[in-house]
Amino acid sequence: MRSKSEKVRRQLIDAAYQSFWQSGYTRTNVDAIAARARVTKRTLYGHFRSKDNLLEAVLSHYEEFAAQRLAHIGERIPGGRDSLIEAFFAQLARWASTTPRWTGSGLSRLVMELADLPGHPARVMARRSKATTESWLAGRLGEAGIARPRERARELMLLMEGAMVLTLIHGNQAYIGAAAQAAKRLIKSK
Amino acid sequence: MRSKSEKVRRQLIDAAYQSFWQSGYTRTNVDAIAARARVTKRTLYGHFRSKDNLLEAVLSHYEEFAAQRLAHIGERIPGGRDSLIEAFFAQLARWASTTPRWTGSGLSRLVMELADLPGHPARVMARRSKATTESWLAGRLGEAGIARPRERARELMLLMEGAMVLTLIHGNQAYIGAAAQAAKRLIKSK
Repeated sequence: MRSKSEKVRRQLIDAAYQSFWQSGYTRTNVDAIAARARVTKRTLYGHFRSKDNLLEAVLSHYEEFAAQRLAHIGERIPGGRDSLIEAFFAQLARWASTTPRWTGSGLSRLVMELADLPGHPARVMARRSKATTESWLAGRLGEAGIARPRERARELMLLMEGAMVLTLIHGNQAYIGAAAQAAKRLIKSK
Repeated sequence: MRSKSEKVRRQLIDAAYQSFWQSGYTRTNVDAIAARARVTKRTLYGHFRSKDNLLEAVLSHYEEFAAQRLAHIGERIPGGRDSLIEAFFAQLARWASTTPRWTGSGLSRLVMELADLPGHPARVMARRSKATTESWLAGRLGEAGIARPRERARELMLLMEGAMVLTLIHGNQAYIGAAAQAAKRLIKSK
């Protein structure tokens, strides 16, 4: 059974995640996070000493979540050369279309927001997380018998990041479909 | 001859551009812009009524600049199927490697920062600017005799946006080279 303190901590992490993801890191303040979690600011500071500290907790929680999500996609992919690509972009399209006010990759947005602070802990974590996804993809492409899996995995990352930015800019998911088509052609081309 | 007032206005736009581009919109304050432009805050407010107003001026200046840059790239491209792609990504690589503390596309970053505000004037301008670049590319690809130029132009945009995000995340320009290679393969593939 989770203690009350653990439950409150988790509520705060969820509230911080929602707030950062919706309004960005800089424009979110600690009061808004406390209000969303329905706790006092005093309680918030009993768990986290600063907004930066909360961000670290959110990111480390996110890292576990992202690893679970990759494992989950991995399990559900049937055989066949295109199916991994399709599953990957279908998951992105589903995420973008079912999330109210979808704003793309929280990690990529955080890096853009903290672009002048390359040493920030959030930047370090973003690098690690994107590198993990790229390696995971290379592994899966290799298992599917696709030639030069590391190069193809990098291209998938380029297309996926581009699709998220342009879907957000244009408010148009056609960019996700275009990215999926391009990825399939790249897998087939010499 | 430019009047003193025009000169100060231009100084303020340049200072605001630099500040927004380096630290993002939210974390830049009007005091920092005035200090960078070497004018008093009173002078700044004599020209612009708010930070939002300054952002509008910066973006409209940027729009002209971007149009000139596209025309400039267009003029210098020799014939041949790959040369447009090469020129496009070479220009991106040059920009990323010669700019101190390069942080990618200011417009894309602004959209990420204002992700929860789809009606913001900066978002409208970003959409228009990215659409202009995509159409320009489609026109050039069509002139070069490349089949399905609109689809290929969209793929170039995806790869370019992805390359900027991932170069910033990893601090590694290899992503620009990978995007250029992928673009050339997409142009050749069926």
